[in-house]
Amino acid sequence: MSSTNNKIVIIGGVAGGASAAARARRLSEDAEIVMFERGPFVSFANCGLPYHVGGEIEQRSKLILQTPQSFNNRFNVDVRVQHEVIAIHRSDKQVRVKDLATGKEFLESYDALVYSPGAAPIVPPIAGIDNPLTFTLRNIPDMDRIIEQIDSRELKQVAVIGGGFIGLEMMEAFVHRGIKTTLVEALPQVMNSVDREMAGIVHQEIRSKGVDLKLNTKLTQISHNPAQQTLTLSLNDNESLDVDLLIMAIGVRPEVGLARDAGLEIGEFGGVLVNSQMQTNDPVIYAVGDAVQTKDLITGEQTLVPLAGPANRQGRIAADNILGHEAHYQATQATAICKVFDFAVGSTGKNEKQLKQLEIDYEKVFVHAASHAGYYPGAEIVSLKVLFEKSSGKLLGAQAVAKDGVDKRIDVLAVAIRAGMTIDELEHLELSYAPPYGSAKDLVNLAGFVGTNIIKGLVAPVHFDQMDAPADNQLILDVRTPNELKNTGCIEGAINIPVDELRQRASELPKDKEILVYCQVGLRGHVAYRMLTNLGYQAKNLIGGYRSYRLAKA
Amino acid sequence: MSSTNNKIVIIGGVAGGASAAARARRLSEDAEIVMFERGPFVSFANCGLPYHVGGEIEQRSKLILQTPQSFNNRFNVDVRVQHEVIAIHRSDKQVRVKDLATGKEFLESYDALVYSPGAAPIVPPIAGIDNPLTFTLRNIPDMDRIIEQIDSRELKQVAVIGGGFIGLEMMEAFVHRGIKTTLVEALPQVMNSVDREMAGIVHQEIRSKGVDLKLNTKLTQISHNPAQQTLTLSLNDNESLDVDLLIMAIGVRPEVGLARDAGLEIGEFGGVLVNSQMQTNDPVIYAVGDAVQTKDLITGEQTLVPLAGPANRQGRIAADNILGHEAHYQATQATAICKVFDFAVGSTGKNEKQLKQLEIDYEKVFVHAASHAGYYPGAEIVSLKVLFEKSSGKLLGAQAVAKDGVDKRIDVLAVAIRAGMTIDELEHLELSYAPPYGSAKDLVNLAGFVGTNIIKGLVAPVHFDQMDAPADNQLILDVRTPNELKNTGCIEGAINIPVDELRQRASELPKDKEILVYCQVGLRGHVAYRMLTNLGYQAKNLIGGYRSYRLAKA
Ligand SMILES: Cc1cc2nc3c(=O)[nH]c(=O)nc-3n(C[C@H](O)[C@H](O)[C@H](O)COP(=O)(O)OP(=O)(O)OC[C@H]3O[C@@H](n4cnc5c(N)ncnc54)[C@H](O)[C@@H]3O)c2cc1C
Ligand SMILES: Cc1cc2nc3c(=O)[nH]c(=O)nc-3n(C[C@H](O)[C@H](O)[C@H](O)COP(=O)(O)OP(=O)(O)OC[C@H]3O[C@@H](n4cnc5c(N)ncnc54)[C@H](O)[C@@H]3O)c2cc1C
Ligand SMILES: CC(C)(COP(=O)(O)OP(=O)(O)OC[C@H]1O[C@@H](n2cnc3c(N)ncnc32)[C@H](O)[C@@H]1OP(=O)(O)O)[C@@H](O)C(=O)NCCC(=O)NCCS
Ligand SMILES: CC(C)(COP(=O)(O)OP(=O)(O)OC[C@H]1O[C@@H](n2cnc3c(N)ncnc32)[C@H](O)[C@@H]1OP(=O)(O)O)[C@@H](O)C(=O)NCCC(=O)NCCS
Repeated sequence: MSSTNNKIVIIGGVAGGASAAARARRLSEDAEIVMFERGPFVSFANCGLPYHVGGEIEQRSKLILQTPQSFNNRFNVDVRVQHEVIAIHRSDKQVRVKDLATGKEFLESYDALVYSPGAAPIVPPIAGIDNPLTFTLRNIPDMDRIIEQIDSRELKQVAVIGGGFIGLEMMEAFVHRGIKTTLVEALPQVMNSVDREMAGIVHQEIRSKGVDLKLNTKLTQISHNPAQQTLTLSLNDNESLDVDLLIMAIGVRPEVGLARDAGLEIGEFGGVLVNSQMQTNDPVIYAVGDAVQTKDLITGEQTLVPLAGPANRQGRIAADNILGHEAHYQATQATAICKVFDFAVGSTGKNEKQLKQLEIDYEKVFVHAASHAGYYPGAEIVSLKVLFEKSSGKLLGAQAVAKDGVDKRIDVLAVAIRAGMTIDELEHLELSYAPPYGSAKDLVNLAGFVGTNIIKGLVAPVHFDQMDAPADNQLILDVRTPNELKNTGCIEGAINIPVDELRQRASELPKDKEILVYCQVGLRGHVAYRMLTNLGYQAKNLIGGYRSYRLAKA
Repeated sequence: MSSTNNKIVIIGGVAGGASAAARARRLSEDAEIVMFERGPFVSFANCGLPYHVGGEIEQRSKLILQTPQSFNNRFNVDVRVQHEVIAIHRSDKQVRVKDLATGKEFLESYDALVYSPGAAPIVPPIAGIDNPLTFTLRNIPDMDRIIEQIDSRELKQVAVIGGGFIGLEMMEAFVHRGIKTTLVEALPQVMNSVDREMAGIVHQEIRSKGVDLKLNTKLTQISHNPAQQTLTLSLNDNESLDVDLLIMAIGVRPEVGLARDAGLEIGEFGGVLVNSQMQTNDPVIYAVGDAVQTKDLITGEQTLVPLAGPANRQGRIAADNILGHEAHYQATQATAICKVFDFAVGSTGKNEKQLKQLEIDYEKVFVHAASHAGYYPGAEIVSLKVLFEKSSGKLLGAQAVAKDGVDKRIDVLAVAIRAGMTIDELEHLELSYAPPYGSAKDLVNLAGFVGTNIIKGLVAPVHFDQMDAPADNQLILDVRTPNELKNTGCIEGAINIPVDELRQRASELPKDKEILVYCQVGLRGHVAYRMLTNLGYQAKNLIGGYRSYRLAKA
């Protein structure tokens, strides 16, 4: 960009927009940079909002990383808050801006435009939704309004609609505030980024904290009772629920109105279409963040993943390209994590539901093992699921749920997936080990062992959803100790021979039946499986053991 | 291996040996497996020993993962503890074994032999070292002896010689027991796996916990005072020290005596030479674990890395190959981690000292940033160093020190290094982010940004060791706030202009000098550097900032 032709206008002053502005200034002192933000704040921590509602983040000021003034001091960016861009005039390279304080409108010219307006909470057209007790959470004013409700009224019961990450975080915030909370989710599970059986752990945790968790349940109607300051929620299970406050958190939708009106191309998932340089079909207009579609790392197809990491990096890439430093966004793999009370639930790549839809021929493994050496205090069981392509072994996705060590395993697998690794390469990963931090064979290595055993034909897997209706020629064998069966129950119809007695007692088993072996997590089942097949029996091992089996129903 | 020719004998019953035995049994019910262990225990947690001395692991029984009986029950392995193999007779495929309980010797034949005797603590020939108050720590009897000393006598002062991970863990154990401890290290730093400036953080931590840390100090002589039950240690700094107990932890040496005597090839670092199938030059003898050399991932040359993860995996690979399932060990990258009081120090790949020796043309970056979003409680500063090849950007090594989040960053980088990634690929890693777990731009991404800026010429780096003697045409500029300078000090001769005033005050700076900019960690320095060069000044940015500069002296 020549120095006489260097005015960059940015729409949206938070993750993508502010990152673009900062990087642009670092690349050029000459550029004129104007950043319009509709709201009263720029550079705030969207992701921290629920934690200030819940009280973990005590100071509201901590959520505001930069003010217009501080941003200007450091980056010499003309930051205009409470200024909404209301139209993009591509032909004369201008935006129409409304000063929300005065109501005045004006035109601002640009040489390059960065479009980073984010995504708005979806508010479905449910009867009665337009009422003063229903809230969404996207920004600081939203947060302030919710806190004001909590502080000014005595909320006894609230409902959160939607079990995605914002819904779960708000649920937790209310519980922290001591308010009775109902979580309503239309799907059979919360956190749809993971599969049903992994979500089972989260369901247990949510219920154990006293939340009323309603799965498979839809909000159908709301009636406002002004006198009582309550809402009566009608649910599709014919129940109704009185609440003092309602949070809608069923998802977000890219803010593409301005872009569409200006003739920028919108993709199939409703996000602005961009190339790898974050350019729209108008080469001087760049779009980034929650408002855009990107390339999916696994499929190479378009995807829509509204997360902060991609938004920040895309903003930086847009600035690079505007200022003549060619840069490309690679692809999004949807690495995500959410805290749910004492647990973390994380995922990266594709989940099993998506792979089914994509008709990709995958296999899966479950490993449940300690977050660090079991003999060192504080170890917690991590439940890890890894998905890979059957034919090639290529890693496709991973999910983990635990009280400790989830982020590490997801990040390790996120890198492995990005590097195009195969399941057997997980065996060889050399991860850090000392008793307080890991295990000589980390969970990720174990997942590699289990998956490679399947690929090499060293184990025939059976999965939890195939255990409830065994065929006539199948027999279920539980190789745990009788005490474990007594304490946790067992799969209906299973016979019990503990693994350590199996070699002696194998003759009790029939050779003409297929034996579906299981233990608690799959490890002893594997030992038993290997023993049995080496002794000439037909067998399969339940991958993930009784634990995965039970969680699928939790 | 045919089923009539299937006797596997294993020397050593812990990490490598026991793993080989278990996998061998899972692969074959027919194989006859005999495991000889010199000591009284198999399958124990070597790595947990210091933590039982210190008391964190309360129950001694937790350290013993399998007994000969339980191992036999599950795996039908003939486990013979207190049986030392004293010779390998390759020509007739027999080992000579001594039953240490009875003193009797006998021969045992093998079809395949797994050599997994581990490594022994190095005890240097220092005058007086042979005394009843000097101990090493390798196994449970060693641990019992040390605990017996602690419990039976009132130890007031102990010394640990050697600041490697076992030395550091023992130092911490004594401090936990309330015993005054001196740590003596011959090198200028502890944890030689990281570089001097990273070790600086560890030095601070060690001293802050009241340990007397003596760097650059050698033990030259010991005299035993039987009456007082003390030792007088003479040090090369002419000081002497009276201690009640002495731990020698200066390193370990592969146990290759038997192998050498049997004519197995030994490598330049003193470990048994093996191919990627873990075969020695005798194709029916496999060697694994601390006793062997392996291929280094970075250089492709031989290396010696005595750690539990490689030992476990190598044992499994040996079993695979013995039983006809071809398997290859890839390479070792020396991923390691150690807890030092509240800090973890971790590393993977090559450190700077090694790269210098190897004459590899590397560049380095330092990032000091929060382990998770700074506004969410509990975030700790992680100091991360990443090394990469100058020409190609290929990642060569990483080090991290912090109270939180070290294992995750080291593991992420360990995978990236194994995948052959370059520094710029770190920019694009999509790691899990929610405020309790990470940041929208993780430390690892930041390291990618900083490194790629250097490669692209967007920043000219200067390093901490180049700041103390600026040339005549150089000027040092501190862009922190005056308050920070007051609180932490600054580099001698620096002038101070806070970054947020720099644009206005740039004219105070000369254009004919090279300005060495620095801030606390490097970020504001980068902003200032970009501003200055864009304004036509000559500048460099101190990578890692004042923090790396100070730590190099700590
Ligand atoms: C409660 C909450 C929790 C979250 N937690 C996480 C998390 O844990 N991890 C994670 O990865 N992501 C999380 N996110 C998502 C993350 O915040 C977004 O992905 C990211 O902020 C998107 O960046 P963006 O720049 O596209 O949009 P935003 O950061 O939303 O910024 C867009 C800005 O543009 C402004 N704007 C819109 N239209 C106009 C206009 N016409 N004129 C002027 N200004 C306009 C908006 O007011 C808004 O401030 C969370 C989001 C929320 C709301
Ligand atoms: C105190 C301590 C802490 C450690 N902490 C860590 C850590 O945090 N992380 C990490 O990765 N690694 C750690 N290690 C190293 C790790 O324990 C070793 O790398 C690993 O155990 C090596 O496995 P191996 O099978 O080669 O040898 P070992 O596990 O040592 O097993 C070898 C066995 O062979 C027996 N043996 C030797 N010669 C004979 C013979 N002739 N006949 C019969 N038996 C014989 C020995 O008695 C010994 O029990 C630690 C080690 C120690 C001692
Ligand atoms: C605050 C905000 C404007 C910062 O933008 P930024 O300056 O680009 O980001 P950072 O402060 O992380 O600094 C990154 C820059 O410092 C550099 N840097 C970071 N650490 C460094 C170090 N130790 N040494 C040298 N340079 C360093 C990076 O290379 C990068 O510069 P570059 O882009 O020129 O390569 C922006 O992140 C923001 O608005 N965030 C809040 C909104 C948000 O992200 N919400 C969602 C998450 S809650
Ligand atoms: C105890 C010891 C004998 C265990 O050996 P092991 O049985 O090979 O190891 P594990 O118990 O981890 O089990 C691993 C096996 O279970 C399988 N497995 C693990 N989790 C599984 C799951 N969820 N589902 C199915 N299979 C599973 C693995 O695939 C592997 O089997 P494979 O080798 O046939 O593929 C050995 O590790 C030992 O002696 N350790 C102590 C010494 C030591 O390591 N010291 C240093 C560190 S302190």
